[in-house]
Amino acid sequence: MKIGVLGTGVVGEAIATALINKGHHVMMGSRTTGNEKTTAWKNKAKNDNASAGTFADAALHGELLFICLNGEYALKAIDTINTENLAGKIVIDVTNPLDFTQGTLPRILENLGNSKSLGEEIQKAAPGAFVIKTLNTVNYKLMVDARKVNNGDHNLFVCGNDVNAKNKAKHFLVDNFHWRADRLIDLGGIDAARSIEAILPFWVLVYQSLGTPLFNFKIVQ
Amino acid sequence: MKIGVLGTGVVGEAIATALINKGHHVMMGSRTTGNEKTTAWKNKAKNDNASAGTFADAALHGELLFICLNGEYALKAIDTINTENLAGKIVIDVTNPLDFTQGTLPRILENLGNSKSLGEEIQKAAPGAFVIKTLNTVNYKLMVDARKVNNGDHNLFVCGNDVNAKNKAKHFLVDNFHWRADRLIDLGGIDAARSIEAILPFWVLVYQSLGTPLFNFKIVQ
Repeated sequence: MKIGVLGTGVVGEAIATALINKGHHVMMGSRTTGNEKTTAWKNKAKNDNASAGTFADAALHGELLFICLNGEYALKAIDTINTENLAGKIVIDVTNPLDFTQGTLPRILENLGNSKSLGEEIQKAAPGAFVIKTLNTVNYKLMVDARKVNNGDHNLFVCGNDVNAKNKAKHFLVDNFHWRADRLIDLGGIDAARSIEAILPFWVLVYQSLGTPLFNFKIVQ
Repeated sequence: MKIGVLGTGVVGEAIATALINKGHHVMMGSRTTGNEKTTAWKNKAKNDNASAGTFADAALHGELLFICLNGEYALKAIDTINTENLAGKIVIDVTNPLDFTQGTLPRILENLGNSKSLGEEIQKAAPGAFVIKTLNTVNYKLMVDARKVNNGDHNLFVCGNDVNAKNKAKHFLVDNFHWRADRLIDLGGIDAARSIEAILPFWVLVYQSLGTPLFNFKIVQ
């Protein structure tokens, strides 16, 4: 499958590498052509299926997209894309609107919380795309291999407006990243991204308390 | 122990009743003297250890306090108390700043989220008290008996500025409500209440998805 990964940080790299290893054709997109990080990733991958381009190139390349951008710059990056090229495509949004610059505790970025979310803003920017919010509540190592924690027995939350696209995205997570189908919890439309993104400051405090980012929440009854 | 419970809703009633059954002397406090709900609770309890009064009466009565008020009115209720009567006392704050009036999704009340929290506001209003935020992330039936879900194997989050008071509060939860000591996760000072309160809209969506409020989060590694 042709997949575009927007973002060159640890999350983008982990997802792009995992997908190359699964045999997909992956283009990593960045702000500029010939970007140092995308080039480094492509060279490290040593695989003809790995390519590099701009955000716009990666959006055009992918039948499926992953948005792995820093929350603060995600919407600006989306602005550089002709979002008509995203129409009809599944866009998996992994972003978090975290702000670590306001004191010792993490916050949600101003104007992206409570009644808003990055998931919804990305959906608004690309109305023809099927934006799915998921994976943003776990560490990047866990995103691409759910078995890294508790043998895969823990939960991931998914939301998006289109049921069919959401099902395809869930299958993709199961097939490529070892998530258990019965551990994926559907929380509704893309507006549920508000609530999902809102748990991140809490996630950071739990991480600090445990001393490891390799944990997840398991819902028990 | 003499305990004051501020609030007459399902949470206040569950906590007050559970504590009467444990042999504590509990006064349920409400806005007015001779309040219908506090009187009904007292009559139902049929126990000399159960008494009723105003918020101020309950604050004076308790060596330990539980704040079980509706998030929207909690600070107004605290305003009716001479908070000097809370000095040196542990105040367990179970409130949530939820707003269900803005569309179909729950939100955090304006001006009580992200950089603020009810826990911090209550601590500011009663600077001599040891305010502990906890129990607010679980259903009231689970608050008073952790065994109701997964045999007690799940997590509760605690924060507060005073380590000694926090330890006493943890012991209280273990001794009275069957919480497992090793499942209580300390997230830091009372400012961590921001992050803990922020997960409530998410909690509500998970509740709606599962169809039962009798669940909890278990951290797995």
